[in-house]
Amino acid sequence: MEFQLDQAVEILSRTPDTLNRLLRGLPESWVLSNEGPDTWSAFGVLGHLIHGEETDWIPRTRIILDFGESRAFEPFDRFAQVEKSKGKSIDELLDEFDSLRKRNLVTLAGMNITTERLAKRGTHPELGSVTLGELLATWVAHDLSHVAQAVRVMCKQYSNAVGPWKEYLPLLTQ
Amino acid sequence: MEFQLDQAVEILSRTPDTLNRLLRGLPESWVLSNEGPDTWSAFGVLGHLIHGEETDWIPRTRIILDFGESRAFEPFDRFAQVEKSKGKSIDELLDEFDSLRKRNLVTLAGMNITTERLAKRGTHPELGSVTLGELLATWVAHDLSHVAQAVRVMCKQYSNAVGPWKEYLPLLTQ
Repeated sequence: MEFQLDQAVEILSRTPDTLNRLLRGLPESWVLSNEGPDTWSAFGVLGHLIHGEETDWIPRTRIILDFGESRAFEPFDRFAQVEKSKGKSIDELLDEFDSLRKRNLVTLAGMNITTERLAKRGTHPELGSVTLGELLATWVAHDLSHVAQAVRVMCKQYSNAVGPWKEYLPLLTQ
Repeated sequence: MEFQLDQAVEILSRTPDTLNRLLRGLPESWVLSNEGPDTWSAFGVLGHLIHGEETDWIPRTRIILDFGESRAFEPFDRFAQVEKSKGKSIDELLDEFDSLRKRNLVTLAGMNITTERLAKRGTHPELGSVTLGELLATWVAHDLSHVAQAVRVMCKQYSNAVGPWKEYLPLLTQ
């Protein structure tokens, strides 16, 4: 698919609610289990999505619109959520993500993102020249890829419980 | 995690709503796109989950409880949904899955699944001897693995749109 702003917003606006239905009120054994040392649980994934709302997508959109390629984005800290989420419950994180996402989509709607503006370029500190359209497509793909991750991590908790069916579930042997 | 019926039902009861939030009302470009020839779209995944509700989990639970290992399960047709879903909308499939799952969880709750019964054995036509606990754990893992699949397939539609960010999104290069 080519990037289209309205199709992207269809996904971005659904992600908090999808995660809410998947995770709210679940026992901690589902939500806090991970795939082994230095891997993320569903809780960790949610903290990471929150940090993106605060420091990545909208701030970088602003930098492209205001400065073009002349000012590189701030590097994104992929592990900041570990400290920031400490002591919170999954339900608190779900509320926080929902409210940040809603606010960011209002901000985005006010930015008058025309087709011409989607082609505007900015500078990623590692990847170099990127377009605003690519940044916004990555926001969507990042959502989907982390929802898939949270669900996969939960699935893996039953790797042994499924017994011989394991061979029919490719996710469990990846 | 060890299999526990209450923890399993926590997931099984959420899946229709999770898919509902993810998929209802989405443009067809998100819902009908797949990963290439002979692969499934989110629509195909949902049809497959419906077929499982109708022919797999509860019927096999009954066979184990009534016949133990003396009668093998009917083989499960993994492609039956292609014909059965034809002409339906994604919203119709979401409603159908929701209602079948609700009915099946009521049936399950009436089956008096004790810890002792979870150890009861049945015969899978290919895998051989399996326990009821393994069957029910597979119901859960099957849900999660297909939710992850539907989300992954949607994510891949932006493989090109994300431009150079592709290398940061492992799901897009799998």
